[in-house]
Amino acid sequence: MQIDLNSDLGEAYGPWTMGPDAELLSLVTSANVACGGHAGDPETMYRTLCLARARGVTVGAHPGYADPLGFGRRVIPMAPAEITRMVAAQIGALQGIARLAGTRVAYVKAHGALANLAAESAEVAEALVAALPPDLPLLAISGTEQEKAARRAGHKVFSEIFADRAYLPDGRLVPRSRSDAMLHGAAAVDRLLGFLKTGLMPTTEAPIRLQAQSICIHGDSPEALDLARALRARLMAEGVTLAPFA
Amino acid sequence: MQIDLNSDLGEAYGPWTMGPDAELLSLVTSANVACGGHAGDPETMYRTLCLARARGVTVGAHPGYADPLGFGRRVIPMAPAEITRMVAAQIGALQGIARLAGTRVAYVKAHGALANLAAESAEVAEALVAALPPDLPLLAISGTEQEKAARRAGHKVFSEIFADRAYLPDGRLVPRSRSDAMLHGAAAVDRLLGFLKTGLMPTTEAPIRLQAQSICIHGDSPEALDLARALRARLMAEGVTLAPFA
Amino acid sequence: MQIDLNSDLGEAYGPWTMGPDAELLSLVTSANVACGGHAGDPETMYRTLCLARARGVTVGAHPGYADPLGFGRRVIPMAPAEITRMVAAQIGALQGIARLAGTRVAYVKAHGALANLAAESAEVAEALVAALPPDLPLLAISGTEQEKAARRAGHKVFSEIFADRAYLPDGRLVPRSRSDAMLHGAAAVDRLLGFLKTGLMPTTEAPIRLQAQSICIHGDSPEALDLARALRARLMAEGVTLAPFA
Amino acid sequence: MQIDLNSDLGEAYGPWTMGPDAELLSLVTSANVACGGHAGDPETMYRTLCLARARGVTVGAHPGYADPLGFGRRVIPMAPAEITRMVAAQIGALQGIARLAGTRVAYVKAHGALANLAAESAEVAEALVAALPPDLPLLAISGTEQEKAARRAGHKVFSEIFADRAYLPDGRLVPRSRSDAMLHGAAAVDRLLGFLKTGLMPTTEAPIRLQAQSICIHGDSPEALDLARALRARLMAEGVTLAPFA
Repeated sequence: MQIDLNSDLGEAYGPWTMGPDAELLSLVTSANVACGGHAGDPETMYRTLCLARARGVTVGAHPGYADPLGFGRRVIPMAPAEITRMVAAQIGALQGIARLAGTRVAYVKAHGALANLAAESAEVAEALVAALPPDLPLLAISGTEQEKAARRAGHKVFSEIFADRAYLPDGRLVPRSRSDAMLHGAAAVDRLLGFLKTGLMPTTEAPIRLQAQSICIHGDSPEALDLARALRARLMAEGVTLAPFA
Repeated sequence: MQIDLNSDLGEAYGPWTMGPDAELLSLVTSANVACGGHAGDPETMYRTLCLARARGVTVGAHPGYADPLGFGRRVIPMAPAEITRMVAAQIGALQGIARLAGTRVAYVKAHGALANLAAESAEVAEALVAALPPDLPLLAISGTEQEKAARRAGHKVFSEIFADRAYLPDGRLVPRSRSDAMLHGAAAVDRLLGFLKTGLMPTTEAPIRLQAQSICIHGDSPEALDLARALRARLMAEGVTLAPFA
Repeated sequence: MQIDLNSDLGEAYGPWTMGPDAELLSLVTSANVACGGHAGDPETMYRTLCLARARGVTVGAHPGYADPLGFGRRVIPMAPAEITRMVAAQIGALQGIARLAGTRVAYVKAHGALANLAAESAEVAEALVAALPPDLPLLAISGTEQEKAARRAGHKVFSEIFADRAYLPDGRLVPRSRSDAMLHGAAAVDRLLGFLKTGLMPTTEAPIRLQAQSICIHGDSPEALDLARALRARLMAEGVTLAPFA
Repeated sequence: MQIDLNSDLGEAYGPWTMGPDAELLSLVTSANVACGGHAGDPETMYRTLCLARARGVTVGAHPGYADPLGFGRRVIPMAPAEITRMVAAQIGALQGIARLAGTRVAYVKAHGALANLAAESAEVAEALVAALPPDLPLLAISGTEQEKAARRAGHKVFSEIFADRAYLPDGRLVPRSRSDAMLHGAAAVDRLLGFLKTGLMPTTEAPIRLQAQSICIHGDSPEALDLARALRARLMAEGVTLAPFA
């Protein structure tokens, strides 16, 4: 058995930091690096890519709406073709920095409101995918319009799951507004191990069969970081190989 | 005889336009396209690259200080390594858009205060050159630190001259503050033709031998645009081939 | 009879200009000045306010979404209270510059997508109005939620009409997508004069009674500017006094 | 005996935080609040002003170069008159938010590179002071061009000293590059108490007489915050009244 661990990284902005990047880069095998849209600037990108390279972590581009004050969590009204241009410029900028850092961008994962919209809208998903360099795979949630658009366009797609989020029977996440949205501690780790052994993910009703090449790790709270550490330790103890998908 | 005509283009910003881009793209053979630093945004880059491609104009990246309100004409205090990262991100962004536009970035020419500083400072010139993808040539003024740094790093360098600016005996331009800084109309065209035939450029003292693969065309005034048209017509009438250097 | 002419002004941004500000400031009696949100920067604000003062033109704040690349024409998702804070900061910035320019901000008119949303949504209208200094009137379209919210909060409201736009029987504008949306030349001038004499505005059906203390003048095309000149000349010829409402 | 404690606050930016604002607002009597130039945005300003008001902390405007990525620590080349306009817009923006927060801006203290330049350059100091509303005092370091320019223009000036920085015989700070630049723990507290009792500040040579109405408190390290707490406790124990100067 083999799986990847991914996390959003490089979301600092000039003098402002965001998240425990150094700790996360010791835990994950793939880093989704902000490209100067929702976060990140040339210095942050370079520092993050150098650290990822030093830790042997694979690097992906993490484009989002060019809206730092909203951190890419607001839908900025844009024509689909404008999204394509915005995303292509962001991926290109990270690729330019990656050359300096002696590494390369190996995949793309959309951020925040852009990712959410592209999961639901075929048109936005196609616009996003149209920005991908031909050889780059997409990291996305299985079953979304994002995944479908990328496959139609001939890109490889890798699927991610969430250790700390409950699932609905259709494969979507239980909304955060519900009290049963989150899993914690050992329960989250046990569920994930069970899934890896059976391919079946428990949901609010019957378990479902899910594809997953990567587990998304959050660093936005001490608890999230503890869960990531516990999960990583348990995976290694169970003999699961942690390795980048790309 | 063959020469290139280059001009700064794609310096719009969102809803704001700058310069007669469409007219200039009918005159030049190389377009220095702003990369989202001092000017330009993904839409402007895309529109400019598409138009350049349609007109058969070769495209270069035109990076500058990330200071739109100052239009890249102010020296923003940065460590040399920060300049490298900033420029690499800008070139990468334009390359990302170029792929969408079905064209490619064929050279780099620095903008404004960054170009001026890199002409004088070997350290800044080296920082600028360190951001160039290995296969891209630099367009610069002959004899500057920019040119020297690019040659040391193994890049091809092409030199540009100015049809409407007087020269000093050391090859530098007469400062704009002097009354004899500018040439106009037929005098400018005649001087340029003479230079192309002899390789000798008149200066405020004796003529000097100058290298030049490209003539820089300004579009910042009706007179400048008229001069560009007159120059192009005269060059063609004299049998000079207008062709991109890159 | 007396009426005001207003226009959006000061929408330059750093090195980029927008619209024929000098010409418009010779035509209007009130200037809606961008505050650094959708357009404008401290230099542009200062230059515009000084010119308005020199021409005896009354100055209003023209706040909009803080989205220069979208020119304030995109709805940026914000909580109502966030809109209040954004607008208050913009009005304050213009007031700070007005003190330097020896003038004062005499009213507020919302810009673009913010104005449109506040016309339809009582919640957004209240958020906008909550940002107004207590003594400042609002310039808005009669019958909108903006007008109602401002009256509820105790602000004076002045109403504007459009010389070049056709009206629907409910007082709203015919959408630009319809072929009968625009009036041109003498027809536009005649309609406006008729309205001023009778208080009745022709619509796509029967004429309606409209309040209007100001006529909005566009400068976004040579035709629009010609119409403004013709309108101003005709109003003066008919003995209508042109004077600021505020 | 009475003294003020001031600190730089409200230096978050959108989703990014900076410094222990809540802790500092429990320690200081005056808060220098970023105005959207080097840091701060309408939400951050509002949140900071509301918290300051709830804690009874006096509020000052803390303008700086409009350079978030450089955090106002880089000198952006600007004409003096441009500095005046930039600073006036920032102070105005904070005043607009202060009205919403039910408080008022009671003084101005310049930030970072702008403060440093205005300390040395009479021209920049005058440009800074020209942006001050007529009734607002300036908080500055005694003996600087800032102080002189403000006095010439008829503004009150209050002086600040630093608990953790060593002084030169001319009243300037020992540069951070020197090993004797910083004081720590009890030594810093003892020196400050001695100064308050005698008006004499130890320097690298003989003590000098210094004016001081405020002590600048840093929150940029756990040690700095500990020093602030120790200083505040000792001042209160010694019967010194902590109160805003403005």
